[in-house]
Amino acid sequence: MTNSITNLFNIQYPIVQGGMIWVSGWKLASAVSNAGGLGLIGAGSMYPEVLREHIQKCKKATAKPFGVNVPMLYPQIEEIMNIIVEEEVRIVFTSAGNPKTWTSFLKDKGITVVHVVSSVTFAQKAEAAGVNAIVCEGFEAGGHNGREETTTFTLIPMIKQNVSIPVIAAGGIANGRGMLAAMVLGADGVQIGSRFAATVESSAHKNFKQVIIDLKDGDTQLTLKELAPVRLVKNHFYHQIQELYQQNPTIEQIKELLGRARAKKGMFEGDLDNGELEIGQIAGIINKIKPASQVLKDIVEEYNTVKSSL
Amino acid sequence: MTNSITNLFNIQYPIVQGGMIWVSGWKLASAVSNAGGLGLIGAGSMYPEVLREHIQKCKKATAKPFGVNVPMLYPQIEEIMNIIVEEEVRIVFTSAGNPKTWTSFLKDKGITVVHVVSSVTFAQKAEAAGVNAIVCEGFEAGGHNGREETTTFTLIPMIKQNVSIPVIAAGGIANGRGMLAAMVLGADGVQIGSRFAATVESSAHKNFKQVIIDLKDGDTQLTLKELAPVRLVKNHFYHQIQELYQQNPTIEQIKELLGRARAKKGMFEGDLDNGELEIGQIAGIINKIKPASQVLKDIVEEYNTVKSSL
Repeated sequence: MTNSITNLFNIQYPIVQGGMIWVSGWKLASAVSNAGGLGLIGAGSMYPEVLREHIQKCKKATAKPFGVNVPMLYPQIEEIMNIIVEEEVRIVFTSAGNPKTWTSFLKDKGITVVHVVSSVTFAQKAEAAGVNAIVCEGFEAGGHNGREETTTFTLIPMIKQNVSIPVIAAGGIANGRGMLAAMVLGADGVQIGSRFAATVESSAHKNFKQVIIDLKDGDTQLTLKELAPVRLVKNHFYHQIQELYQQNPTIEQIKELLGRARAKKGMFEGDLDNGELEIGQIAGIINKIKPASQVLKDIVEEYNTVKSSL
Repeated sequence: MTNSITNLFNIQYPIVQGGMIWVSGWKLASAVSNAGGLGLIGAGSMYPEVLREHIQKCKKATAKPFGVNVPMLYPQIEEIMNIIVEEEVRIVFTSAGNPKTWTSFLKDKGITVVHVVSSVTFAQKAEAAGVNAIVCEGFEAGGHNGREETTTFTLIPMIKQNVSIPVIAAGGIANGRGMLAAMVLGADGVQIGSRFAATVESSAHKNFKQVIIDLKDGDTQLTLKELAPVRLVKNHFYHQIQELYQQNPTIEQIKELLGRARAKKGMFEGDLDNGELEIGQIAGIINKIKPASQVLKDIVEEYNTVKSSL
C-alpha cells in the first residue's frame, strides 16, 4: 500500500484517524498509529495544557508517527501551536480557518502540514499556502462541514482535477469497500472518523458509542447553517433547534439555545438528550465497538479482498 | 460486464440513462439503448399522447430494450400506465410515490419494474412491493431528492445490507471512475443523469447544456424542502427563493413564487434566469457536450482501465 500518503507520513497504510473533538485523545491516536495508520489527537476540545499532556502520553505510547488536528478558530491558537512545536509534534492537520495563517510557521519548523477543505476553491488556496496534502471532506461527514454541501463522491474527483498535492478523502468512509471506492475516485488516502469514534480506545462516552452503533440512515442531519454547518444526531437537542427555526429566530436566539459545552455534554458526558452528538451518515453501517487495531485490520483486509475480486 | 442488471434488462452494460424531465425523449433514450445501455424516456414532463409518440419513435429508432420513467405523482397516471401497456413497453422505472400502487399492475403484464428510492426504509418497501430492482439515489443527484439527504457514498452500502434485489446506484456518477466506485460500494449497476443531459441527443435547451458544462462545485443546492426537496442551479430564480425564505414565508407564498412550468422554462426553453435548472453536483466534472454513444464508450473504457490498474 505504499503511495504518496504512506511516504508523506512514513506510515504503513494510507489511513488517517480523524482528529475529532472529545473523542480522539492519546489513547485512540496511539492505538491507530501503533496499528499502522496515522493517529490524530483532536486539539479542538482540549485546554492547551491538556493537549500537552495528551501529546506527551502519545509519545510514550507509540514510537510511530502521529499528529494533532487543530481547528484554527481555537481561541488560544498561539499557545496551542507553541506547544505543538515545543513537544516536537511532526504532523499537524489544520481545519476551519485560513491555511495561510499557520502553514509557513509550522513548515519552517519542519512540520508536515495538512489542511481540511470542503471545496475546490479552498483546496486551491491550501495548495497555494504550501500545505503538504489536503483532506477533502464531504457533506456526509460528522461534525462541522462546508457550506457548499458537496458530497465525497463528487468532491474527490473535482478536487483531484484541480490540485497536484496528495488528496485524503473524508466523509462516509468506514470500511474497506469505502476506502477502495475513495481511491478509485482519485483519493491517495482516507481519513476515517465515525468508525474510530466507536472503538474501545475512543474517549466518547459509552452512551454516545451505543448511539453510533444503533444509528440508521436518516438519523443525522446538517443543521445550524447560520452559525457553522454541523452534522448532528437528530436527538432532543436537534429537535429543539428545528422548533426554534419555525419561529424565524435571530442569530442571537440560536446562539442562546446552543449555549456552551453542548458537544462535551453529549459526546463526552453522555447526555444523549441535551448534548450535541456529532457523527457521520456512515454510522448507519457501524454495528460493533471494536479495538482500533481491529478496525484497521478489518479495513485493510476488506480493501484487499474486494480489490482482488474485481 | 454481464451481471444481475445486464441480465434483468438484457443489455450490454449495467448503465441506465436517468429518465429526466424535459431532457430524456426518444432521441436520447434510443441513442443510449443502441450503444448498449438502457435508455429511459422521462414521462414526467410529457402529456399522455406526447409520451405515446415518444415511445413509438423510440421503438422505430432502436431494436434494443428501453424503458419509461414515471413519477407516480403524475396527475394522469392511469392514462400514462395504460399507454405504456398498449405500446408494449417492457421496462418501467417508477419514482416519487408508493411502489405498491402500480407494481402488481405492471408485473402482471410481464413488465420489469424498478423503483427509485432514497432511504433504506423505502428500499425495503419497494422490495416488499415486488419490484425487480431499485435505484438508490443520493443527495448529490439533480432534481427531486430524498428528505434524509443521504449521500450516494453512504446510501449504497446501507441499502445493499438490507435488500436482496439488485441495486442501481444514482447520484454523482458521470464517468468510469464513478461507475467503478459505485460497484465497489456494492451497486450492481449505475443510473447516470447529468452526464447524459449534456449530450447531443438530450432535449435540454442549448443554453442549459452550456450551463452544465460551465458549472463548478458549489453551484447547485438542494432547496424547496417544504414542498419536495429539489437540487437546482443557483441562478436568479434560486436566489429569489432564498430571499423569500428570509421573510419566513407560508407554503402558499412559496408555491406562488414557484408558479407553473418553471422546469420547462429553464431546461427546455433555456431561460437561465427565471427557469428551474435541475442538475447534479457532478456537473462540476462535465466539460464537453458529446454524443450519447461516446459518453457510454468513454465510461466503459475508463471503468476497464481503472479496474485493470488497481
